[in-house]
Amino acid sequence: MKYETRKREEMIYLDNAATTVVDQQVWETMLPIYIEEYGNPSALYQFGSACEKKINEVRKIIASILHVDSANIYFSPGGTYANNLVLQGVLSRGGKGNIISAMTEHSSVYQTIQNYQEKKEVRMASVNSTGFIDSAEIASLIDENTLLVSIMHVNNELGTIQPIQEMGKTIKKANPKTLFHVDGIQGFGKVPIDLKRCKVDFYSMSGHKLHGPKGIGAVYIADPNALRKQWFGGNQEQGMFPGTENVAGIIGLGKAAEIAATTREQNWAHTDTLRSQLIRGIQDIEDHKINSPLENYSPFILNLGFKDIRAEVLLHMMDDEGFCISSGSACGKSKRSRVLESIGVPKDYIDGSIRISLSKYNKEEEIDQFIIALKDKVAEIRSIIRRGR
Amino acid sequence: MKYETRKREEMIYLDNAATTVVDQQVWETMLPIYIEEYGNPSALYQFGSACEKKINEVRKIIASILHVDSANIYFSPGGTYANNLVLQGVLSRGGKGNIISAMTEHSSVYQTIQNYQEKKEVRMASVNSTGFIDSAEIASLIDENTLLVSIMHVNNELGTIQPIQEMGKTIKKANPKTLFHVDGIQGFGKVPIDLKRCKVDFYSMSGHKLHGPKGIGAVYIADPNALRKQWFGGNQEQGMFPGTENVAGIIGLGKAAEIAATTREQNWAHTDTLRSQLIRGIQDIEDHKINSPLENYSPFILNLGFKDIRAEVLLHMMDDEGFCISSGSACGKSKRSRVLESIGVPKDYIDGSIRISLSKYNKEEEIDQFIIALKDKVAEIRSIIRRGR
Repeated sequence: MKYETRKREEMIYLDNAATTVVDQQVWETMLPIYIEEYGNPSALYQFGSACEKKINEVRKIIASILHVDSANIYFSPGGTYANNLVLQGVLSRGGKGNIISAMTEHSSVYQTIQNYQEKKEVRMASVNSTGFIDSAEIASLIDENTLLVSIMHVNNELGTIQPIQEMGKTIKKANPKTLFHVDGIQGFGKVPIDLKRCKVDFYSMSGHKLHGPKGIGAVYIADPNALRKQWFGGNQEQGMFPGTENVAGIIGLGKAAEIAATTREQNWAHTDTLRSQLIRGIQDIEDHKINSPLENYSPFILNLGFKDIRAEVLLHMMDDEGFCISSGSACGKSKRSRVLESIGVPKDYIDGSIRISLSKYNKEEEIDQFIIALKDKVAEIRSIIRRGR
Repeated sequence: MKYETRKREEMIYLDNAATTVVDQQVWETMLPIYIEEYGNPSALYQFGSACEKKINEVRKIIASILHVDSANIYFSPGGTYANNLVLQGVLSRGGKGNIISAMTEHSSVYQTIQNYQEKKEVRMASVNSTGFIDSAEIASLIDENTLLVSIMHVNNELGTIQPIQEMGKTIKKANPKTLFHVDGIQGFGKVPIDLKRCKVDFYSMSGHKLHGPKGIGAVYIADPNALRKQWFGGNQEQGMFPGTENVAGIIGLGKAAEIAATTREQNWAHTDTLRSQLIRGIQDIEDHKINSPLENYSPFILNLGFKDIRAEVLLHMMDDEGFCISSGSACGKSKRSRVLESIGVPKDYIDGSIRISLSKYNKEEEIDQFIIALKDKVAEIRSIIRRGR
């Protein structure tokens, strides 16, 4: 069987912020776990404790990328569970208090906060037209009852990189007791970060956004006593994430993180070249808008708006031509993007906005083909929509 | 690379209730998901919806084994999360109420219930000396405020198969509104069950107990409105288990369930033969006790007690000889077994009790070797312990 790149050769996949292909080196490390080293890490015999050791090696890999201690890394069943543990873990604590976040957060943060609105006061920081949040405004929202600030590292729809270090310092200056959660799911392994220097208390990660498997994630927790445990059972992951450890997933995440870290600069340069190519390529499409920032952006994500276009129609037509793109987060399927609404994308552009998200595997030729098809389909849709007026 | 059975040839693995090796057919179905069909099932393009279709095929496989509709099957990150969703989903509802369970439940049920003791009244049904729970006693504990009865299908330490059908009928007769949760993690794919006939409202499952991957499980939910959602994010699994679906895990679980279902009778007969062989083999070890039932048992699990033995010492000595066994649940590592305590195993046997758990891959010769080693080590430990008196 030759798996390699068969499907990838058939289609052009530009939705890498939704999920990514698993690297060959990653699944090659996972396979022996399934069939040879399948022990339960909690077992008392060597066949089990050998798996526990392997898991702890991955803890070290992740910790070294984040410049923290490996004892503070906990494995979760994915990014959503990591975010839920942190937010619910803090918000379910008794007493009054408030939390600061923004409308541009991923639904696993945003929806969780919404669910605690009756118990804790929610304060939303404003975002500018490219998704940036002002540290000074966050400071102005903090008071003695602010339990947590939750802001994402890299926005999943826009690619906006928040000034986490500045934010961390500002938050702790305003109230040293306020905890700082950073959803790092689109940032981890792509955008370097020193969590201690940034005064981050919690940082969430996911495997499948960086060529690791789905169903595995991790979270950095500076102080486990800062949150209430949310799930109960065995004492795996110090009781933060009970249940038999997903050993193969953890090993896969570790290998994916290791590859991402060692190839970070070249991946950045490569995707940045493709992103520039995309921006150049759409310049002669009239009535377009670049929703992503042009400074302090992750090159893996580019959000573009087209006037008089229905994004759903566009992406179905592009799909028929073999291009995979999205109109926003896969987790927000079929809804108008809350992120684009909150950065104030004009009404006549918001429904015609698409997210193109790149990976190290994308090629210049793919982008060339994509631009040709995009121009063609945008013109086709407009000719129908504008004719109808 | 020849993975196959290399490690299994080196050791004799008798801890299959803790976790199992992944079947070759299982990982062969998972591999293409990692590297070819890696789309996000929530994506709008065909590459994504093809994955969604594959997931729904697995829903049908599981539903057909349980004799229910596939729309009622939800995929979870494992058995612990399935149990937590059901228990917390019911117990976090407002108002007073009580819940009925037993001391012999797995920690993911027991600990979760413990955590709600201040909010809901907990009523524990008694268990007999082989772990059976009396349906009539459960009926006597039910009143108009009984929200939920949670009893496991097959006990993970003893192999005791509860009379679920009788229990379901008794519960619904006592109070038709009382919900019935069955932790099926050790039963699924091994012990047949018709959930509708048994009047079960929730049934939890896990992949890695039946030669599927770790980090994946499922739960049957008769009425999703009967519980409050516990985690927030995208709408995956109808919001019951948000976050990108672990597609490879789900596909692996599906294949494992399919294999288990089609080979169920031969697996049962095979393990039952080995279990009998074990029981015969230990007859001439003096001062032994069979903690498992001799009727209505799952042949995959056998719990044995030996007087004047420290189980931890025994299993470390057996480990050095290449045998993997446990002293109870891997999730209850290093603690004295709550299950054995609650069925009243005498004090001089409880610390010398071990669990042997079998799979279709175990062989008669392995059991022969195990018995020889066990006799040898029991005698060795006793000679030291008894000499010290």
